[in-house]
Amino acid sequence: MALRAALRGKSGLAGLLSCSSHGRLCPSSSSISQRNNSSSAKLIVDHDQTTGVAVMHMQSPPVNSLSLDFLTEICITLEKLEMDKGCRGLIITSNQPKVFSAGLDILEMYGKSPERCGEFWKAVQEMWLKLYGSNMVTIAAINGSSPAGGCLMSMTCDYRIMADNPRYSIGLNETMLGIVAPFWFKETMVNTVGHRNTEMSLELGLLYKPAEALKIGLVDQLVPEDQVLSAATQTMTKWLAIPEHARQITKSMMRKPTIEKLCSNREADIQNFVSFITKESIQKSLRMYMEMLKQKKA
Amino acid sequence: MALRAALRGKSGLAGLLSCSSHGRLCPSSSSISQRNNSSSAKLIVDHDQTTGVAVMHMQSPPVNSLSLDFLTEICITLEKLEMDKGCRGLIITSNQPKVFSAGLDILEMYGKSPERCGEFWKAVQEMWLKLYGSNMVTIAAINGSSPAGGCLMSMTCDYRIMADNPRYSIGLNETMLGIVAPFWFKETMVNTVGHRNTEMSLELGLLYKPAEALKIGLVDQLVPEDQVLSAATQTMTKWLAIPEHARQITKSMMRKPTIEKLCSNREADIQNFVSFITKESIQKSLRMYMEMLKQKKA
Amino acid sequence: MALRAALRGKSGLAGLLSCSSHGRLCPSSSSISQRNNSSSAKLIVDHDQTTGVAVMHMQSPPVNSLSLDFLTEICITLEKLEMDKGCRGLIITSNQPKVFSAGLDILEMYGKSPERCGEFWKAVQEMWLKLYGSNMVTIAAINGSSPAGGCLMSMTCDYRIMADNPRYSIGLNETMLGIVAPFWFKETMVNTVGHRNTEMSLELGLLYKPAEALKIGLVDQLVPEDQVLSAATQTMTKWLAIPEHARQITKSMMRKPTIEKLCSNREADIQNFVSFITKESIQKSLRMYMEMLKQKKA
Repeated sequence: MALRAALRGKSGLAGLLSCSSHGRLCPSSSSISQRNNSSSAKLIVDHDQTTGVAVMHMQSPPVNSLSLDFLTEICITLEKLEMDKGCRGLIITSNQPKVFSAGLDILEMYGKSPERCGEFWKAVQEMWLKLYGSNMVTIAAINGSSPAGGCLMSMTCDYRIMADNPRYSIGLNETMLGIVAPFWFKETMVNTVGHRNTEMSLELGLLYKPAEALKIGLVDQLVPEDQVLSAATQTMTKWLAIPEHARQITKSMMRKPTIEKLCSNREADIQNFVSFITKESIQKSLRMYMEMLKQKKA
Repeated sequence: MALRAALRGKSGLAGLLSCSSHGRLCPSSSSISQRNNSSSAKLIVDHDQTTGVAVMHMQSPPVNSLSLDFLTEICITLEKLEMDKGCRGLIITSNQPKVFSAGLDILEMYGKSPERCGEFWKAVQEMWLKLYGSNMVTIAAINGSSPAGGCLMSMTCDYRIMADNPRYSIGLNETMLGIVAPFWFKETMVNTVGHRNTEMSLELGLLYKPAEALKIGLVDQLVPEDQVLSAATQTMTKWLAIPEHARQITKSMMRKPTIEKLCSNREADIQNFVSFITKESIQKSLRMYMEMLKQKKA
Repeated sequence: MALRAALRGKSGLAGLLSCSSHGRLCPSSSSISQRNNSSSAKLIVDHDQTTGVAVMHMQSPPVNSLSLDFLTEICITLEKLEMDKGCRGLIITSNQPKVFSAGLDILEMYGKSPERCGEFWKAVQEMWLKLYGSNMVTIAAINGSSPAGGCLMSMTCDYRIMADNPRYSIGLNETMLGIVAPFWFKETMVNTVGHRNTEMSLELGLLYKPAEALKIGLVDQLVPEDQVLSAATQTMTKWLAIPEHARQITKSMMRKPTIEKLCSNREADIQNFVSFITKESIQKSLRMYMEMLKQKKA
């Protein structure tokens, strides 16, 4: 049933891997001010020093595509927050309507030099490493669709709260675009929903409606759309009440094997991505996909 | 609840590992004709060149026991289909009433020389390797009971549709016969239903009714008995719409570790089986089991 | 939902890791008599020679805390039963009201020399190794709360039946005390309820009500409180009807990787525990925790 529903849902998917039509030239100017806020073109960080919770709002129009610049900005912000002892919890959410993040920016993979592709992939790895290995409590406040890289980002968090809106969907749907999710995407998903759900998800490139995602454990909680952030804040309070040191060591114990596997294979993973993505057949798939997206908009 | 129901169901199980009373002398004459069909004594293959889907009907009376000859025939057929670029999807089903496959042929394990036992086991491995590692989309249309080797065969497929008939059951019930499922049976099951379900299943040799099998994820979908094949065909259409290359690489990524584990231990696994099965105590169990089956028939 | 309920429940937890106020000087005098019973200060063993089932009643007041002496007594008893060919099944239950076992005795970890801490931890390992690797069918008849080490003990069994009383709870809640569950606690739980449930459980130190525990698979069956032991006995009969040799080999196949991992790391695991538990900050946590427990009693 879930399979059929998910396949049905696919016809209506908007993003997937996304294609941002604007440039990638915004400076990475994020900085955590002393006054609890930092802002840049694409990332608003509200850091409440009293509670120790930072909320990172993604606002890279139109759909928070993860371009190299945006990823770099996210990584710099994550590193600052991680090193800030006053920040113990991180909530990730979106300021763009209807979408959490549409995933990796397709423009970074199309018509680019191998060097550039490699640089991009390294940034994707970096974001995953920083999030999956974070000592902070991390909660994804998924207030819109969250395909591909957006789903990966969500899965790195300690807890996932999604808007209960059947128009939204979440999943690692790379296969639908002819792209293969790498082993660390796969392992993050296996650690979240188990082997069989991951196998079917990845083979079919499934996107799940919120109710289906809850059922297989891809998200932990559904709330009305306007309560996503407040629910995340409430849950954060409970997580921050847990003895911190023990929680951090425990988290590390659970995730270390997966993290170490990427750490000891980063370069090979990059080479693997670059040689795959620069293939003529894959480039052709991406071009067709982008044209399909353009026609949808028109 | 599931446990108690499953244990209750056990009293009524007919097959287990099965005992084919006919000889094993049918020639392995399967061949894929240009005219979309191939037929042999025990295997009917309908290959629809238009859709790229082959349906493999098992008809080795009375219960599709997997004898050495039948396994050999299946392997030859699988190899041909795998190499045929016109064949992208495979549906496996049964032409025998009430049974998908009753599993490994007990006669191959009773009173046979170690050499013969080893040859048999190699064929079991071969079938598993071909099915679990297939590049085709594979769907099990389980239109009858599917114990032991029949369950293994089903679990190698990408998707399992079972007849919603409470008289049928499915499971790796080898333990009930005093036999131990080897590690690759175990890992295939862990990859399907998780560690705990597998542990309880294998320790108790559980057979699940269709509704129970659906609940733990041992099958993916139940349909009325007369719709098993049509449902499989419909599902196949959806799977074949997925970008093929990405789907294949993804499938391989999910299954490779388990496959490689057998590949690098085939000979030891054969020796292990032979020395176990030729033990006097095990031979005695098998004899008693066969006598019990005979009495049931009478 | 489960998370919030579990967090809510936490405020009312009594035990956790427990603190036995009585001494640890009872002699380890357990011995299996020829007359089907053995008794000692803390452990009553009813061994029914007809059925081959031993029931081990824990009665170490007030809450069956696992002190070094009690662990030693349990291990000696387990070893005797394991070597007794007349004993094929073991049911573990409690003679103390409202509690199965409150887990590791906090007094063994507070203000003790590193040598003594190491000796204690070795006994914890020993109990786990004996139970998780037992050839007997083991069933936990959980007739009360079962936090921390009590939950570990339950999870080592082949089957778990819990009293359906919402006042009771079960879980590895070490994190709540500032302590980290070691890798083999973690792996035992992953093997029982999967990776994601374990991650959330251990990071938050969750205790589950019986209904929640059933839902995630932490226990297998709930029955009215006065039927826990009789249900365990009934289930045991079914398990003992399974061909024994095949069941034992299968159990070993499922659990061997986890057991071997501890066996080849015992000394390092002990050192790890000792250096962690003797830290000033951890000792301070334990002292505060014990004071909190005292105030609750007063």
